[in-house]
This record gives sequence, structure tokens and C-alpha cells, in this order.
Amino acid sequence: MIIGRSGVGESAAAAARPARDHDAGAIAMLWSARSVAVVGASDKAGALGRLPVEHLLRYGYAGEVYPVRPDGAPVAGLPSYQSVQACPPRVELAMIMVGADRVLAAVDDCVAAGVPLAIICSSGFAETGPEGSTRQAEVTARARAGGMRLVGPNCIGSVGVERGLVASFSPLFTGAATALVPGSIGFVSQSGALGYGAVSLAFERGLGLGWVVNTGNEADVTALEVMLQIAQIPDCMGVLGYVERLDDVRTLRRLASAGKPIALLKAGRSSAGQRAAASHTGALATEDRVVDAALRQLGIVRADDVEELLDLGDAFGSTRRPRGRRVAVVTTSGGSGILAADAIDAHGLDLAALSDATRTTLDTIIPAYGATANPVDVTATVMSDPALFDRALDAVIDDDAVDAVIACFCVITATDVARVVDGLGRAANRSGKPVLVARTGADHLAPDAADALRAAGLPTYPTPARAVRALAGLHQVAGVEPRAVAPAVVSAGRPDGGPDDSSEPALKAALAVAGLPVPAGRLASSAADTGRAVDEVGGSAVLKAVVPGLVHKTEAGGVVLGVTTATAGATYERLAALGGGVLVEEMITGGIEALVGIAPSPLGPVLTVGLGGVLTEVLDDVALRLLPTWADDPWLAGAMIDETRLGRLLAAARGTEPYDRPALEAMITTLVIAVRQWPPGFELDLNPVAVLPLGRGVRVLDAAYVPPGER
Amino acid sequence: MIIGRSGVGESAAAAARPARDHDAGAIAMLWSARSVAVVGASDKAGALGRLPVEHLLRYGYAGEVYPVRPDGAPVAGLPSYQSVQACPPRVELAMIMVGADRVLAAVDDCVAAGVPLAIICSSGFAETGPEGSTRQAEVTARARAGGMRLVGPNCIGSVGVERGLVASFSPLFTGAATALVPGSIGFVSQSGALGYGAVSLAFERGLGLGWVVNTGNEADVTALEVMLQIAQIPDCMGVLGYVERLDDVRTLRRLASAGKPIALLKAGRSSAGQRAAASHTGALATEDRVVDAALRQLGIVRADDVEELLDLGDAFGSTRRPRGRRVAVVTTSGGSGILAADAIDAHGLDLAALSDATRTTLDTIIPAYGATANPVDVTATVMSDPALFDRALDAVIDDDAVDAVIACFCVITATDVARVVDGLGRAANRSGKPVLVARTGADHLAPDAADALRAAGLPTYPTPARAVRALAGLHQVAGVEPRAVAPAVVSAGRPDGGPDDSSEPALKAALAVAGLPVPAGRLASSAADTGRAVDEVGGSAVLKAVVPGLVHKTEAGGVVLGVTTATAGATYERLAALGGGVLVEEMITGGIEALVGIAPSPLGPVLTVGLGGVLTEVLDDVALRLLPTWADDPWLAGAMIDETRLGRLLAAARGTEPYDRPALEAMITTLVIAVRQWPPGFELDLNPVAVLPLGRGVRVLDAAYVPPGER
Repeated sequence: MIIGRSGVGESAAAAARPARDHDAGAIAMLWSARSVAVVGASDKAGALGRLPVEHLLRYGYAGEVYPVRPDGAPVAGLPSYQSVQACPPRVELAMIMVGADRVLAAVDDCVAAGVPLAIICSSGFAETGPEGSTRQAEVTARARAGGMRLVGPNCIGSVGVERGLVASFSPLFTGAATALVPGSIGFVSQSGALGYGAVSLAFERGLGLGWVVNTGNEADVTALEVMLQIAQIPDCMGVLGYVERLDDVRTLRRLASAGKPIALLKAGRSSAGQRAAASHTGALATEDRVVDAALRQLGIVRADDVEELLDLGDAFGSTRRPRGRRVAVVTTSGGSGILAADAIDAHGLDLAALSDATRTTLDTIIPAYGATANPVDVTATVMSDPALFDRALDAVIDDDAVDAVIACFCVITATDVARVVDGLGRAANRSGKPVLVARTGADHLAPDAADALRAAGLPTYPTPARAVRALAGLHQVAGVEPRAVAPAVVSAGRPDGGPDDSSEPALKAALAVAGLPVPAGRLASSAADTGRAVDEVGGSAVLKAVVPGLVHKTEAGGVVLGVTTATAGATYERLAALGGGVLVEEMITGGIEALVGIAPSPLGPVLTVGLGGVLTEVLDDVALRLLPTWADDPWLAGAMIDETRLGRLLAAARGTEPYDRPALEAMITTLVIAVRQWPPGFELDLNPVAVLPLGRGVRVLDAAYVPPGER
Repeated sequence: MIIGRSGVGESAAAAARPARDHDAGAIAMLWSARSVAVVGASDKAGALGRLPVEHLLRYGYAGEVYPVRPDGAPVAGLPSYQSVQACPPRVELAMIMVGADRVLAAVDDCVAAGVPLAIICSSGFAETGPEGSTRQAEVTARARAGGMRLVGPNCIGSVGVERGLVASFSPLFTGAATALVPGSIGFVSQSGALGYGAVSLAFERGLGLGWVVNTGNEADVTALEVMLQIAQIPDCMGVLGYVERLDDVRTLRRLASAGKPIALLKAGRSSAGQRAAASHTGALATEDRVVDAALRQLGIVRADDVEELLDLGDAFGSTRRPRGRRVAVVTTSGGSGILAADAIDAHGLDLAALSDATRTTLDTIIPAYGATANPVDVTATVMSDPALFDRALDAVIDDDAVDAVIACFCVITATDVARVVDGLGRAANRSGKPVLVARTGADHLAPDAADALRAAGLPTYPTPARAVRALAGLHQVAGVEPRAVAPAVVSAGRPDGGPDDSSEPALKAALAVAGLPVPAGRLASSAADTGRAVDEVGGSAVLKAVVPGLVHKTEAGGVVLGVTTATAGATYERLAALGGGVLVEEMITGGIEALVGIAPSPLGPVLTVGLGGVLTEVLDDVALRLLPTWADDPWLAGAMIDETRLGRLLAAARGTEPYDRPALEAMITTLVIAVRQWPPGFELDLNPVAVLPLGRGVRVLDAAYVPPGER
């Protein structure tokens, strides 16, 4: 099983990048700089080089703005400077907006002036082809040599919202009706146009952002790095990211450990999308199911769409978290209640089973045409009576079986707003349980509702399905708190760790040494010795040709089952004629075939468990985990088995006995511990692993190993 | 395999309902009535009985409005009448808004006045429990006896938008800013609150509706019936429906045959949702995957959410349809292009491979930092030059490999709008290919854009994923045109059709008569006869105990494999001791095990094909089709096989030969033809069906049959 394209434990790019904790301050200049130089500033109306200057002035940035242009003429009424070095010290952030051919000189100028961070907005770099890539590498090397961090090139800039630090030429900030909406959520996007489009939608829905950054080509600073810096700001309540590459497992693990809810829209799920991403920013592909597994494992919510990303941002803005997956639905619309129940099921949450006491209480409040079972249809009559509505809400939210509430309304009119918001807000506050609202009705029917709901900490969505999806994300980040970062690699490994060679006997010997159960057996030295070997393993054996480079042994006639002492000699001769040794192993029958593998990926080694044997390719039903797992969140063999149909195959079915699942779990655990001593970057495929009836253990029937660097 | 809860070919409710083509005119009164009586009208501000009168006046209904109240006092300035019979003849539509206990009298009044259709808004019927159900049945019977159709009870009413016929008390129509947005899409909802919430969202986004109906408890008229009537209106361009029950296969098939695009949000996907639906409207459950398969087969788009339903409505509003699944993406945002490519893959569409000629043309237009491969990043520079933008669009849309275009933009500003709309609208019109737009940016940046895009016939969505999802729906309805309705039942069947009894020998005999391949074999009459029978089938046989009521033969020790003439006698004695006969069959080995079954569902007989044997329950991997299939859209055994992993299992894999897929396809076809003569409502399970290596055919190894009415 080959996962991803990289043959090393982490991407070469990530490994080559030095540790940069000391540079954190540089990245923070994106929102905390006290002075900004705009290199390539222009006074011409509408010119890109004028827009950042205008934006900084328009949105109230209180720091210094230094337009830089060769002729020193004023820009937007501000005096300009002929170089960054000529600006009053110290320039804390530079925007470079000159043509690609003049960027190198601008970078030199910034370095000479001691600028800690420059945003290169200019295009004409890696996105244009090999020549541009060379230019980008040159610029990056020059900045690194000078100790300056770079954002971009080919980006639209960044915004420190609280301070009006709009270091961006996005047309969003030119819009007559545009107003910044400050808040505690960070938004980082590798893509510029899409990123600022999403930011405009966030502001439009009232989702306040504190930090907005576009990283473009990511010659130096990456979106993940910026997200990590933002997550470490105490006021930050969550970070949303759009990325096209995901191969920096060190930063990803640090980001997941920062204790803030994180949502990531990783584009390139499909191979078509990955090809598009590769041509867009040269991002290396990471197999999508590895991305899925890694993010889920790290507690990062994966969004599929810009709208979902923003929906999660709305949810992160409230501090209440569900303690479990049991959801109560309160509604005045039976239809909305059913749709919410469907969505709860689809997202792996549970419709809470309300207690008898709760049902009894609700029976005294809710009229016959409502419903006191979950989904609870309180009816419009109850909603219109604050005392009754509060009693119904209290009964539901105080039920110990309820971890969160989805409240669904349709046409809310202006007269409903205060009742709905007061009732829900009070119940949420008092109980500490999250309440998310679906409001399936036009805004104009109650224009104040959106603001009032937001102010009360009630994330609101247009449909039950979207509210439930956001709650599912909230459930995924419910346990997030700062913790130690798990190491990004299994171990340094010993140079001599792992199997000596990839032949089946050597590999099985290494597995046996590691404590893994392999079939009894040995190499036979002659036809006569084969008879003895067959006898040693119980009189019925499998004989296998051991020929270097012969991968598909079975198809080549290199495997013979059910060999007895009588047929041993002749079989030996036939297999030996293939040009190698002959392995004699005990014959194992009657098990369920599993697959256990470890393969490198751009995010590090990935453990795979699933259906093995002939079903491997047909069903492709596997569970994945990044290695190593968190110290405080151990990887569970059982969970992986249950994620696949293996769980059902191993259980006792009608007329069959159960298989030895505990032995399989133990074997997987043993393997994961053993390979810590193996050199990183190897690939190991145990398939099939026969899981025998309960009490009889497992056996690794076949195995393949590819040493590091040989893929 | 048990599908659904009903034991008959169609639901009892649907079967009991008379054919009603002659009532079509009655349902049409919901939008074409020239006079409306409001029974239970009130003059009190805010009273429910006053609202329809106010709404009819406010929205310009030009017909007669007759408030009906016992005291004959004026309502909203209109004279009222003491009964419907007292109104000037002829009342074409009555709204009944009195208390539940007075509804029967109101119905009698309407019948006496010759009203063709009444909407009972009152609640207090089946939704409240058994007593209400009795009341509902009584009211319905009275209306039917009098020849009057009923909408409701427990509903919010309907709207004929074009004529301002707002026969509804929804608060939507009381909203100060509410305006009707007329259009050519119909919207029918079983749920009132959710339905009018959705309508408010449709109007808010500018999606014009022509006909809006809420059917509530559906004592008589169902949402499907109303959708069918709307679909038959020439001006109608598509119908959207929200339903909680789906068991009227006759109307569903007629709706699908009406030649208009249909989208259906069927709530109750999950068992939790189905339980909620059952308690909400007493809807019988139809297993969700039967619903999925049936709608796909009938060419009806299934929406999962209100938002998706409205998105489809936007798409139906343009007449251009994709001729295939190949999509070109044109964008100014690389990120949007990747997300569109991902969505195209997720929805089973294909990213079009542009021709070399197209690429060459685009190379002359698009700068190096754009992309000429699909997704085509034309860049903002090209978009800002109308001549270049048009040339690029023409090159893409005229490519024969392109069936549809998704155009993705982010921050569109007011100055972009005309260029984008003109360019895209012209290209779409000229080519006849659909162009759907993703505009991922705030509305206020170009407030006129939404209307301009809509006016140009360019359905527009906030994200690439939503635009692609709508296009996938459009692809599904692309072939929809009026056609003959397929019959809803397989056939009347002969009372004596089908197997004589359910024993394995009788069943296999019946299958053999029908032309299905069963193993050679016969019942043995004695130990000695068993030896002869084994000899007849080739010397190696399977012996099976034939004991009435013994379902799990294998677990009971009632099946013995590999019986030879030597062991035949003893095996016979052992099996005969179980108390029944002994069947001797040829021993079949080495095949792939498939499952072929037919089971009744609320939507009629459902054909199931998938993995058989031990994998049936573990993998649950089956394809479903309603029987019968369309005459002009034959059900394809091959398509069903390929929908499951059976397709891959039957193909030649590494080191194995292919299996006899043609024989399986022929067997399925033979079965479907044969069972037309069987009585409706039976259940037949052929599992396993051994599919032998190519050229050796298939054999039905085991079979179970449940006659109609015995489930």
C-alpha cells in the first residue's frame, strides 16, 4: 500500500526548514506592526500601489504609513520615501508591490533597513513556471540570509482587524459599504481571491475576525505557521484556514496542541482537484484519506466548503461545548425537527433520549398537537408565552441525557425575536450547554434577529442541517486544550533497525523477533530436508519459492498449499527450479484475513488496518492513523478495527464462532511499539494476517517490506 | 431481505384512493379560483381568521373574497356572509379556519354550496392522536361523499402567486417588507412552518415561485398530487417538494413522467428522523435506500436540505441543460477552481479535458500566472478586458468536450458586473450550454449583480460546491421530457402464479420452469436411492434436509457438502431423521456468491442485486431498482452489478480468470420477466447465486420465498 508521493517521514521541504520559534515575533508584525512601508506606492487613483495606503488611512490604522517610491512624490496625501532605508526607523512591516524583476532589490532594501517581515504581493514567481521558481528561490534565499521573514509572493496581503492594519490591496476594502467587523476568530488562506471573498462573506454575516492573512505562494511563511501564531494569541477563540498543501506535520501537530479550535478547508480532495492545486501553487499531494484521518486524529475539524468553514467560525465564537454527542432538538416546526434528526444521524451524533421526568414535565406544557419526544415540538403557542417557553426549555436542557440543543424556527417575526433570544440565551448560559439555532426564514421578517442571536452567543444557521453540522464540529473540538506536542516522527530509529533484507524469511524472522506471530517454518536445504521440515510443522505445509524480485509469488506458481511429506520432495524440486530458496511453513486455514501496514506519507508514517487477502483491493476498507499517536490520546487498535467491516467479520455471526480479535489488537500494538526502532521512511505490508478462531491467535501469512528510500 | 414495512405492492392508503384525474380541476382552484370564502373570518386585528382576508386584499387578488362568520359582521372592510351557502355563487375555494369541533359543519356547508375544494387550516386532527384521527376520517368521508376535495387539515394554506391568491395565514405575508416574487417554479410542502420559511428564503434570494401549497395532514390531497398538477401547467419550469411520506407510487411515477424537472426533499433519512416523521404526520416509513434508488431511477432529484432544494429551483429556472457530465471551470481564483474540481468529482461529474486547440487558443489569451488547463484560471486581467474575456469564454464553451461551465468568482465589484454577466450570458445563449456561477463574495460589493445574473439566466450560488451540486441536479433532469407512465405494478399476476409452496425443491422447480439455472438434483426416496441420485449428479453432491419451517438449515446440521456414493446412505439417514425429505444436488464450487432478490416495499416491488453468501450481511452492498422499469429506460442488470463491488469481484483480477457476468445478467433479466406472472407482494431471495468462471454460467444454490401476505 503506497500512500502519498514522498518517500520520507516528512516532506523534504518541512525537514529543510529550520525551527523558527524565534521568528514568531516577525509573523506577529502582520497584526502588531507599528509602522508599515508600502514599496512601489503610487498616487494614481485605482493603482494597486495606492490601495494599501488608502486602506490603512481609511480603516483608522494609528501606526506610521511610509509610501516608498523612487521619486519621493506624495501618495494619497502622505509624504513618501525613496527607499525603505530612507524611512524613519524602524519599519516593522513592508509591503512589496513592485514588478517581479525589482523585488530582489526591494528585499535587499528591506533587509538593510532591518525590517523583520515583508509581504511580497507581486506576482511573476513560482506560479508562472520554472523561471519564476528560480526567481522566487533567489528572493527567498536573500531574505533568509538577511534574517527577514517573507509572506507571499503572489498574495493580496493581510489585515490586523482590531487596529485597522489593512496591509492589503483587496478590492474588498475599496467597497463603499465595506466595514471591518472585529472579532476573535483568525482567518488564514493560501488563496488570495477566495480568501478575501470568504472574509467578505464573514463580515456580511456578522462573523467578526481578528486576524486575516493570505500567504500566496508560501516561499517562506506558510498558512499553518500563521495559524499557529494566531492560535497562541490569548484573545483568539479559534482559527479558520484554507490550504492547498498539507505536508508540514511538525507545525500541524503544534497547531493542534495550541488549545484553540481549528477548522481547515483542505482543497484537493479529488485527484482532479489535486492536479489543479499542483498547477496552482505547486503543492505536493497528500492522499486525501490520510488528510482526513490525520485531521480527525489531531482534533482539527475538516471543512468541505467555504460556507462550512464560516459556519464553524460562528460556532467557535461561543465558549460553550457539548460534553457528549447527545442532542435535543427544540422546534416549532415538525418538519425542521425531522430534518435535524436526520442531520444528527448523518453526522454521527445521537438524538438524546429524554428522561421520563422530562417527558412528564413537557406533557404539562405542550399541547396535544406538539411533541414531547425528541425532537420536541413546543408549538408556536408555547413559544409565544415566555413563561411556558422557558419552562419547556429548562426541562429539556436540564435533562442529564442532553449535551447540546438545536433550536429550529422558521418564519420568526420581529415580535418573536426577544422571546426566542431571551429564552434560549438564558437556558444556554444557565446550563453551560451549547444552543445552536436554525432559523429557516428570510432576514427581513425580523431584521434585528441575527444581531440579537449573535449577541446572546447563539450561533445561527439558515437550515437545521447546517446547524447540526456546526454542532458536530463543536463536538470534535470540545476536548481541545493546550497540551504537549506529540513528536512528529516515530523515532530517530537505529540505522540498523528493521529487517536485514526484504526476503520473506528475513522479514518474518525480524517480525518474530519483534514479537509478532508468524507461521512455524524454515528454509529447506534439499528435497529430503523439505520432508523433515513438513513433518516439523505438523505434516501439512505451505511451500513458497524465495526468489529475490519475485513479488507475485502466487501468480508465478511459487506457492503450493497442502504439501504433505509424500509430496514434499517433488514440490521442493519444482520451486527450487524457480531459482531461489524454498520456505516451508505450517498450513494455516480457517481464519479471517486482515491487513496491517505502515507506509510513509508527507505527514509521517501512516498505520493502516483493514480487510486483507482478496478483499483488500475489492473492498478497500481500511482505517488510518498517523504515527506516533498522542501520548494522552493513545491510538486504539480496537477503534481502527471497528472503523472497518473487519469488526463485523471478526464477531460471531449466525452459526459461526468469533475470531481472535484480542490477538489482532495485541499484534497491532506490538508492531507499533516495535517499529519505533526502525529507521523512518520504510514501508511494511502484512497481508494477509490470518485471524483465527478465538483463543487460537493470529498469524502473519505474508509480508512485504520496502526499506527507506527504495520506493 | 425485508424492505419497508408494508406487505403489499403499494401502500394500502394509495391503493384505497380512487383514480382522480377528474379532480385535477379541483386542485387547480388553489391558484385559479375566481372566488374565495374564508370560513371563520374575524375582524380582530392579528386574529388568524382575519389574516387570509388581509393577505388577499394586500397582494392584489382580483377575485371575490367572501368572509364567512355567524354574525355576518364586516371583516377588514368587506361584507361577510353567515354561511358559504349564503355567499354569491359560485365559491371556487373555501378556507376553513374554525375550531376542530366545527369543521364538520363547515365542510357540510361547503359541500352544500358546491365548493370544489376546501383548505382546512384548523388543527386538532390526526396530529393530536386517536381522537383527532377519528375526527379527521369523519370529515374526509363527508367531503368525499359530497364530491369535494380537501387540502389539510392542519395546514397554513396556499398561494397562487401570479394572481395574488394568498389563501394563507402564514406570518410571512404579514411582514412589512414581504413582496411576492412571481416565477415559474412550484413549491409544495407537507410541512407548513418549514414550507413557508423556505418560501421566504426563496423570495429573499429572488427565486420566483408561481404556485405555493402546504398540504399538512394530507387527509385527502397529497403533496405529490399537487406537484403533479403544477407540473402539468405549461408555464411551469420545475417543481420543488418537501414530503415526509413517500408511498404513492402511482402518483410518483406520473409526476416523473410529466416532463418537468422535479426535486424532492424527503425527510426521514435516518431511523430517528423516520420516528419523528411518524409522530408528526403518521407517515409510514419507506426504507431510505429504496427512496434513494426510486427517485434516482425516476429522474427526480433528491435534495438533502432546504437550501439544496432552493438551489435546484434556481437551476431549473434556466432552460439550458448539460448534454453530458463533462464540466469546464472558468475562474479568476485558483482556489475556487480547485474546490470546483473537488465538487465535480464528489458529485460524479467529470472535469472536461479541453482539446489541444482550445488550450492553444487560451495560451494566446491568458497570462503565465493563469492556467489554461481545466480549471481555467483566466486571471482578473483577462476578466477586466471584455474582448479577451469573451474570446477565452468562447474557446472553452465551444470545446466539444464541454457540456457545461461553472464560472467561479470571488470579490466581484460593481465595475465587474456588466463584464461578467454580459460575457457569460452571451456565451451561454450562443452555445446553449448551461453556465452556473459561484460568486464567493459579499453582496454589498456589487448590489446589482444578483439580479443581473438572474436576468441573464445564470444561476448563481455562494460557493463552487453549491454551484456544482446544482449542476449535478440539472444533469440528472437533463433528459426529462413527457413520456408514457410506466405501470406501477409488475402485473396483476395469476392467482396461481409463483411457486406452489416455499419448500426448497418446489421453489427450485418453479425457478427452473421460469428459466433460471438451478443445480441438477432431486429428492431422494431412500438411502439406496440417495446413492443413485449422487451418481446422477456426478458423484459429488450436496445433501439438504427439506423440513417445513427449518429456515437455518446449515446451523441445524441440515446441509452436508461433498457427499459421495460411499457416504450417501448414511448421510440420508441422518438428514431424514430431522423429520423431512432429503434433497440431493450437484456440488458447485469455485464461484463468486451473488444475491438476487425481490421484495415488496411501499413503492412496489424492489429488485435487489449485490454481494451474496457470507458477505451479504457484513458488507450490505446492494443496488436497488423499483419494478417495473420504464419501457423506454430499461433496467440494466449490468448497471446494478457495477453499482456494487460485485462488478469488481466478477472481473478478472491478478492471477484469476473472470467470472460469468453475462450469465448473471441474463439470469436477472429472466427473473424479472418471469415474476411478471407472479402475484404481487411476494418476497424472493436467491442467495447465494454462484457465478462460475466465464462460460460455466450461474447456479441458484439456495432460495427462499414468502408468498404475498405472509410476511
